[in-house]
Amino acid sequence: MRIAVLGGDGYCGWATALYLSQRGHEVAIIDNFARRQWDFELGVQTLTPIQPLPERLNAWHERTGKTIEMLVGDVTEYDFLSTVIKEFEPDAVVHFAEQRAAPYSMIDRRHAVFTQVNNVVGTLNLLFALREFRPDCHLVKLGTMGEYGTPNIDIEEGYIEIEYKGRKDVLPYPKQAGSFYHLSKVHDSHNIMFCCRAWKLRATDLNQGVVYGTVTDETSLDEALINRFDYDEVFGTVLNRFCAQAAVGHPLTVYGKGGQTRGFLDIRDTVRCIEIACLNPAAPGEFRVFNQFTEQFSVVDLAYKVQAAGKKMGLRVEVEHLPDPRVEAEAHYYNAKHSKLIDLGLQPHYLSESLLDSLMNIAIEYRDRVDTALFMPQVNWRNARNVRRRQPGVTVSSASGARS
Amino acid sequence: MRIAVLGGDGYCGWATALYLSQRGHEVAIIDNFARRQWDFELGVQTLTPIQPLPERLNAWHERTGKTIEMLVGDVTEYDFLSTVIKEFEPDAVVHFAEQRAAPYSMIDRRHAVFTQVNNVVGTLNLLFALREFRPDCHLVKLGTMGEYGTPNIDIEEGYIEIEYKGRKDVLPYPKQAGSFYHLSKVHDSHNIMFCCRAWKLRATDLNQGVVYGTVTDETSLDEALINRFDYDEVFGTVLNRFCAQAAVGHPLTVYGKGGQTRGFLDIRDTVRCIEIACLNPAAPGEFRVFNQFTEQFSVVDLAYKVQAAGKKMGLRVEVEHLPDPRVEAEAHYYNAKHSKLIDLGLQPHYLSESLLDSLMNIAIEYRDRVDTALFMPQVNWRNARNVRRRQPGVTVSSASGARS
Repeated sequence: MRIAVLGGDGYCGWATALYLSQRGHEVAIIDNFARRQWDFELGVQTLTPIQPLPERLNAWHERTGKTIEMLVGDVTEYDFLSTVIKEFEPDAVVHFAEQRAAPYSMIDRRHAVFTQVNNVVGTLNLLFALREFRPDCHLVKLGTMGEYGTPNIDIEEGYIEIEYKGRKDVLPYPKQAGSFYHLSKVHDSHNIMFCCRAWKLRATDLNQGVVYGTVTDETSLDEALINRFDYDEVFGTVLNRFCAQAAVGHPLTVYGKGGQTRGFLDIRDTVRCIEIACLNPAAPGEFRVFNQFTEQFSVVDLAYKVQAAGKKMGLRVEVEHLPDPRVEAEAHYYNAKHSKLIDLGLQPHYLSESLLDSLMNIAIEYRDRVDTALFMPQVNWRNARNVRRRQPGVTVSSASGARS
Repeated sequence: MRIAVLGGDGYCGWATALYLSQRGHEVAIIDNFARRQWDFELGVQTLTPIQPLPERLNAWHERTGKTIEMLVGDVTEYDFLSTVIKEFEPDAVVHFAEQRAAPYSMIDRRHAVFTQVNNVVGTLNLLFALREFRPDCHLVKLGTMGEYGTPNIDIEEGYIEIEYKGRKDVLPYPKQAGSFYHLSKVHDSHNIMFCCRAWKLRATDLNQGVVYGTVTDETSLDEALINRFDYDEVFGTVLNRFCAQAAVGHPLTVYGKGGQTRGFLDIRDTVRCIEIACLNPAAPGEFRVFNQFTEQFSVVDLAYKVQAAGKKMGLRVEVEHLPDPRVEAEAHYYNAKHSKLIDLGLQPHYLSESLLDSLMNIAIEYRDRVDTALFMPQVNWRNARNVRRRQPGVTVSSASGARS
């Protein structure tokens, strides 16, 4: 298939583009390198030293003989995006090209507005470009499990059958997102659902859980293909951050009680889920939702797993409970369905000791690149403005960002 | 109370500002006159000759001795909006300052993006301004019944108790909006709900039905206080448009079968609902939703009512069924609750023959200002681009906008 990967230079996008190319698809990466710019803005960098995209693609070509096309531009610019759709003629568009960090969206008003406008307008542009120039193309959109929040009933995959006062309907699952970022994905979902109905577009919304891991079969072919490994308080996903903390002897930063339970998946499953969605497209007019994760864990569960893995390696790992900078339930019911991708053939990589060992080993390999000042949360959900502070050589204490 | 009316120069906003002023509140109108600019863009004008806002406010002062403050600016500009909140120190903010026409949002990509960015950013700015400078102020936000779509179960007021697989929760009512405009209100609702939770703001979302009528006790005090009466295919609400059509002998333009059923209310009830909401504020942290309408009608019901009213006046009124330019069910179950405002004291003005007579009389009084070329729908939901055409002296036929 011809597959356009929007945001293909990012964490999930890069792994996906390589996997799809390896599997024989014709792949183009569309990216404006916003993710690299946010690193500069925040004063952070990935633990793993990633290469510029042209060098990544050269290395890929040298190792595999395969070519991934690179198209540089911003999906919020319609002239650019619509030209890409017209000229590349994709069978599927995988849309990762959004601002994806909840803390980033909660820094202040400017970041909240940027996140929502960037994400909503990019997706609207894509919907219009598909309607105008490629109406049969399958949109594979990255959503998030965070769209659902933590309701006290089971979470279904996108829709729920409601029996109410003697009548019945299947309705979109109610949304209770917990940050301006998560809300932007809720907005996207509603917009896409409408366009499938009005224009008979075909779309799959992948409500993804929290991704962990960094190595895939493809990225390990060459040092130049290495993927991002974010461990900072803004972009670092929790398990990766815990491994980096363990590797340098920093306490694991658990927010509140740590009873926050979420769906998780290995990045090797992310890439497989994307291909499964592409190979099994939604029908014209269909807005299909898959919950894309493989296991549920609470945050404190993960901390204890990392602690145990560290102990095996002779590391002493402490678990620190910080005041939760987010507004969320610290203990709650959580039972989210995730069978549709399994039904289509996904064979999950469950979180294992060997995966934890390998993640920890990567963190140890690059431990000299860890900046411990980046671990402590400086974005407090309760503030309208958070000023993130850095002083060279000074580790920021956990309370500094929590002004009210 | 000190009440800021954002969008106070528009149809509902103007009537509301006068009513609140008459009732003794200290009122400020915040407006950027975008609504007047859209008239220029679309080549349309209100049937009733409205005056510039300064002249309206002078007339109000002359007739009543009351002063309404005018603050000119755009709510999407944070410096402006936050200064207004800081300096006017409102107890309640009534937020009408959004692009409110579904057809306008469906013209093309630019109008879709404008509508969503304008509405979402304006509301985000307001939430941040309240959080930063007036956290106890009550936000009274205009939503729309269109957020719910037409589910096959009863529509509740904002939330629904769901029993599912032996567990129970009260969740936000599922949303199925039918245009980029209606979707913008869904986005707003989710954003406001989150801010009430995260920041303990207090908000009431008024999911308003379709408003009809133009005269209120206040606007009838002076010719210079007259309110808008939109009858065009973009901004004209259906009953007002039917009355204008009847007044000039044009067939009533029913879209499809006309079985589309919606909630409706008299503009005299709009203004009362707003005051009721202000006088009974939501609690800190509460996101409260009222369905603001008084009766349900199908579109064809209304056409027959206008036909009957016209007949009494000696007008021959035909009903024409056009292909529906919208994507919507033309016949469906519809039972929407609307008791919360009644419980707080609303005494509805139900649609009566005398109200229809008075509406028709206004249409007849200003019939010379009717441009019949503006009746026919030129925005087709199924198109990604609609080019609205005007030729002087030529009535546009109903099919011209329906290119696919």
